[in-house]
Amino acid sequence: MTSSSLARPIELQDVSISSKFWLGRIRTVKDASLPAMYQQMKETGRWDCLKLQWKPGQPNKPHQFWDSDIAKWLEAACYILAKFPDASLHRLAEEAVDNIRGAQQEDGYINTYYTVVEPELKWANIAWSHELYCAGHLLEAALAHYTYTGSNRLLGPLMKYVRYIDSVFGAEEGKKKGYPGHEEVELSLVRTYDITDDPLLLNLADYFIKERGSRRPEGHYYDIEAKARGVPPQPGPGHGPPYSYHQADRTIGEMTSVEGHAVRAMYWLAGAAGVCRLTKDKSIRRALDRLWKSAVHRKMYVTGGLGAIPELEGFGPDYYLPNETGYLETCAAIALVFFAHQMIHLDPLNMEYARVLELALYNAVLVGVALDGKSFFYDNPLATVDGYLSRSKWFEVACCPANVARLLSSVGRYIYSIGSDDMIFVHLYVSSVARVTLSTGETIRISQESKGPWEGGSAFAIDGSTNLGSVKLCLRIPDGCTDFKVTSSSSFQCESAGYQARIVQCPFVTQKTVSISVSFSFRPRSIHPHPLNLDNTHCVAIARGPFIYCVESTDNPDITDLRAIRIPDNAEFSEEILDEQGLGRQGFDQACVHGLGDKAIILKTKAHILQTDRNEQDTNTVLTLIPYFMWANRGKSNLRVWLPRL
Amino acid sequence: MTSSSLARPIELQDVSISSKFWLGRIRTVKDASLPAMYQQMKETGRWDCLKLQWKPGQPNKPHQFWDSDIAKWLEAACYILAKFPDASLHRLAEEAVDNIRGAQQEDGYINTYYTVVEPELKWANIAWSHELYCAGHLLEAALAHYTYTGSNRLLGPLMKYVRYIDSVFGAEEGKKKGYPGHEEVELSLVRTYDITDDPLLLNLADYFIKERGSRRPEGHYYDIEAKARGVPPQPGPGHGPPYSYHQADRTIGEMTSVEGHAVRAMYWLAGAAGVCRLTKDKSIRRALDRLWKSAVHRKMYVTGGLGAIPELEGFGPDYYLPNETGYLETCAAIALVFFAHQMIHLDPLNMEYARVLELALYNAVLVGVALDGKSFFYDNPLATVDGYLSRSKWFEVACCPANVARLLSSVGRYIYSIGSDDMIFVHLYVSSVARVTLSTGETIRISQESKGPWEGGSAFAIDGSTNLGSVKLCLRIPDGCTDFKVTSSSSFQCESAGYQARIVQCPFVTQKTVSISVSFSFRPRSIHPHPLNLDNTHCVAIARGPFIYCVESTDNPDITDLRAIRIPDNAEFSEEILDEQGLGRQGFDQACVHGLGDKAIILKTKAHILQTDRNEQDTNTVLTLIPYFMWANRGKSNLRVWLPRL
Repeated sequence: MTSSSLARPIELQDVSISSKFWLGRIRTVKDASLPAMYQQMKETGRWDCLKLQWKPGQPNKPHQFWDSDIAKWLEAACYILAKFPDASLHRLAEEAVDNIRGAQQEDGYINTYYTVVEPELKWANIAWSHELYCAGHLLEAALAHYTYTGSNRLLGPLMKYVRYIDSVFGAEEGKKKGYPGHEEVELSLVRTYDITDDPLLLNLADYFIKERGSRRPEGHYYDIEAKARGVPPQPGPGHGPPYSYHQADRTIGEMTSVEGHAVRAMYWLAGAAGVCRLTKDKSIRRALDRLWKSAVHRKMYVTGGLGAIPELEGFGPDYYLPNETGYLETCAAIALVFFAHQMIHLDPLNMEYARVLELALYNAVLVGVALDGKSFFYDNPLATVDGYLSRSKWFEVACCPANVARLLSSVGRYIYSIGSDDMIFVHLYVSSVARVTLSTGETIRISQESKGPWEGGSAFAIDGSTNLGSVKLCLRIPDGCTDFKVTSSSSFQCESAGYQARIVQCPFVTQKTVSISVSFSFRPRSIHPHPLNLDNTHCVAIARGPFIYCVESTDNPDITDLRAIRIPDNAEFSEEILDEQGLGRQGFDQACVHGLGDKAIILKTKAHILQTDRNEQDTNTVLTLIPYFMWANRGKSNLRVWLPRL
Repeated sequence: MTSSSLARPIELQDVSISSKFWLGRIRTVKDASLPAMYQQMKETGRWDCLKLQWKPGQPNKPHQFWDSDIAKWLEAACYILAKFPDASLHRLAEEAVDNIRGAQQEDGYINTYYTVVEPELKWANIAWSHELYCAGHLLEAALAHYTYTGSNRLLGPLMKYVRYIDSVFGAEEGKKKGYPGHEEVELSLVRTYDITDDPLLLNLADYFIKERGSRRPEGHYYDIEAKARGVPPQPGPGHGPPYSYHQADRTIGEMTSVEGHAVRAMYWLAGAAGVCRLTKDKSIRRALDRLWKSAVHRKMYVTGGLGAIPELEGFGPDYYLPNETGYLETCAAIALVFFAHQMIHLDPLNMEYARVLELALYNAVLVGVALDGKSFFYDNPLATVDGYLSRSKWFEVACCPANVARLLSSVGRYIYSIGSDDMIFVHLYVSSVARVTLSTGETIRISQESKGPWEGGSAFAIDGSTNLGSVKLCLRIPDGCTDFKVTSSSSFQCESAGYQARIVQCPFVTQKTVSISVSFSFRPRSIHPHPLNLDNTHCVAIARGPFIYCVESTDNPDITDLRAIRIPDNAEFSEEILDEQGLGRQGFDQACVHGLGDKAIILKTKAHILQTDRNEQDTNTVLTLIPYFMWANRGKSNLRVWLPRL
């Protein structure tokens, strides 16, 4: 196995999660988020918009993104239904399918807005219209529906739509040389190709990736379509941002840093990485390496969040990561999970991708939804001063709620990947049962009993019908863990795969069952900022296991101003395990406690509190830290992730 | 003399500046800023808008603020003309006067927008209309014109307008209970009262201050007028910000902190302080103390700038002072100078007011205009990362250019105040000649030869026609100076007035001339942030004399990223005096050099430069610092005021 070996993603339907923590999060999506979102969509007119009955002058005028809201909800619903049959949710899902089918035009086109509101602008403003963005989300919903039901009832119409799109856009003579202003369709094409093997899908995705930002002799495509509409080209006062906002100022091969809108950029790169996995394009591969480093090494927050600049919903300069004004859109973290997941499959022995996937998932994504599943953050600054921030039930631009729902309900997809030589890459230590087909064609079953996410260690039981001696587990050594150790009841080989992973195999095993255990410990650890990140000069962040911790004022009522906290360099952190009762005492209500899987670990330390009133002496206090994703579930409060050192 | 003794401002026409530095700044206003602004106003239709010839459908539709742009230009022009006669500038000023006179309606009303664009909304939207804001600026222009010409040609019509306003707004039965959404008129009424003694002016100002934010039984005035227009009241989505944005959420007596739009808040408090000086209202006095402390101790940047929140153009929470995203509008610093100046006269022995006035003037105000006078900053962050910031020739909302012009051209007003008992308060050490009328009615002449602003020390020569034994100078001890020492050729008494000032008198003098000299030294000094200002944790700012210094990348081409600079705690700063040639070598062009009065002092120190590339060792370099107000005069570059300590 060399580092250039590829791996393929495990399919979601082959994984069943049993982790109490993750079942807590997923059941909350089912029982709270999906119904709450349906209600909001129903009330705002979104749910029924695909019936195409809106007329000018009526309320609830459809918006360009509305189809994608329904699509993401449907996608999440199908993931949920595959595990938790539910007749009424099933009926709603099929109603959504009917609506989408009903909205399809003769030529295959599906888009509410450009069918009923501005039909004359169909395909005329691809830089801003979100038509291809909605198409991508509809395709992902169709794929989820296909996987759940085995029926082509939605995937069929969507494939017709894709063929229509392919007839409109492409490198071939006579086709428009456009590409989406909001990327997303590329990744959905790759995912659908992974299931259906239809080369048209990959060709179209490859075209969108390669065409993006190109300067043809006739000009930039967005200029051409703007001119055709009689409006001035970007950028300029009142003309919109520069094309770097859409990652369309140059081609991917020419890009040296991620710029512009963070969600667009991450969807784009996830799609590009998927294309690269399938086409093995070397120039895209080099670009992906550069752009990964730009995003993750220089523009990522400590929580895995992305986007320093609210005005752009996007990236700022390198290492410019302000806390209070940071944007860190929930969707950007979700998109980073997708990007990291696709990158894993280009270089599965580089554990950085899984490390970042886990970081973003457990922190920047999870924080986007309340523990009770009913309210959502769109942007996620790392500090607040005046208690202004709380989650919202819904947003006018409602991308984040359904996006987080579809990711949480499909988290099983990120636990394993399948490499050549029967290598099973373990990205996440999450209790689950998975089915994996070996190179021999035989299917094995991997049960993982994990102590995660709160403690380190997992016991793997691998069952098959024959000899399991060829099976290898590539075990990732998580960030900041100690005492990483592998054991087995069989004799085994354990080989280092860099300093980030161990490859374990039981070559002489003759049983049809193999047990391999990995143990490791989590201790609270300090993270120091990059020296050019001046917003956090002389500060530390505290982490334990996959979680970044924070101070929330709710837990620290004696501290008038969280900014007065100073952490001594020799501070020791003690751990406190909270069970259901403990969480209740800490102020979390029943719904939140269940959403957490009834357990959490909080940290305590002695901190120095500055007294800014001249007449008072500094004091010491016992500071409570909670996992960052758990903040803002107990009413208005303040937050700090980075804490100044004493 | 007790600390409750009041003082009166010296009138601008009684002071003539001879400081090379200030003549450089003022001549630049005359020769560059006023012509450039006239040109912009002419081209954008502002200059001629008061001719009231705009019709719907024509270009250059007047905006609600346009009258104020002309008024501030005219005010500055009159200040300039009083010192530097100039026939063509005089003609333009009189043309503006003619236009304003011509725009006056039968009832006295003067407002372009509400005469030609939306006449049906006259006085109907005082929360947002800027009618009273424009009225205030027109009144200040009229006052400047009256002082310059001695003619009532503009002040007469404006007094008619004021009487009309007084007939519309006021506490009396039948009058509207409104007050301006953008304060300014209050201060102009006070200033006009100081000259004309017309009690109507003070009564109206007093009404505006006292009525503001009151909750009458019939409701909040802004709600009432919104309802009358048939629009929803503030706040709410699409309804505008909360009333705290206008400082109208409660009355001044109920306010505990400055909130909302910083320029509005400072104009308001300057007006309130002026009213308080004249009415001696104790509740307002207490409120002013509270609100001064809120603004200056908890919400002011190290440069004297105000406004952390761009979205509000206003105040954030206490000690929240981000560098890169700070707003620090030039106009807010100008308004702080006005507020501080009015506060001086409530408590002239409290030197904090003059200290803050000087800080804001030499830093947060001066930075608002290029050294060549031709371009302007609207907002003034204290750090930039990607070289995005440069001054603009003009703004759509063009409040700042003419505002800085009128302040710089009237800076003489801030040098002295006249207390009871022939006490002359010296606020600024600026070479000048002033006329002061003593309690005896006799007029004396004070010549000040100052080494400022680059070095400390001034020689005062006081000439009168009789015995000068009663004259006292209250000499402020500037921030961070050393070796403050008073000498005189006559025998003199020197008494401490707190630790911030010395009161000097030559009681036995019998001559008609007295010489008093004060000497002090400036050394580079470090300023440490408030501990709750976490944006600058473990950082220092460097100052010398009245100037805050900064690092600009232009002067430090070897430093790739200014964020890599670390200042050792034992760093020593050497001073380098730049003359005309030296400034040229430092990259300043001729116009900038002359705008500076041909001299500046820059600082050098040995700094540590972090190398973030793992393969390179940290280095030391000689760092150049320049006064903050001088930055951004040599093309695109980056800026940092606060520097991390090593």
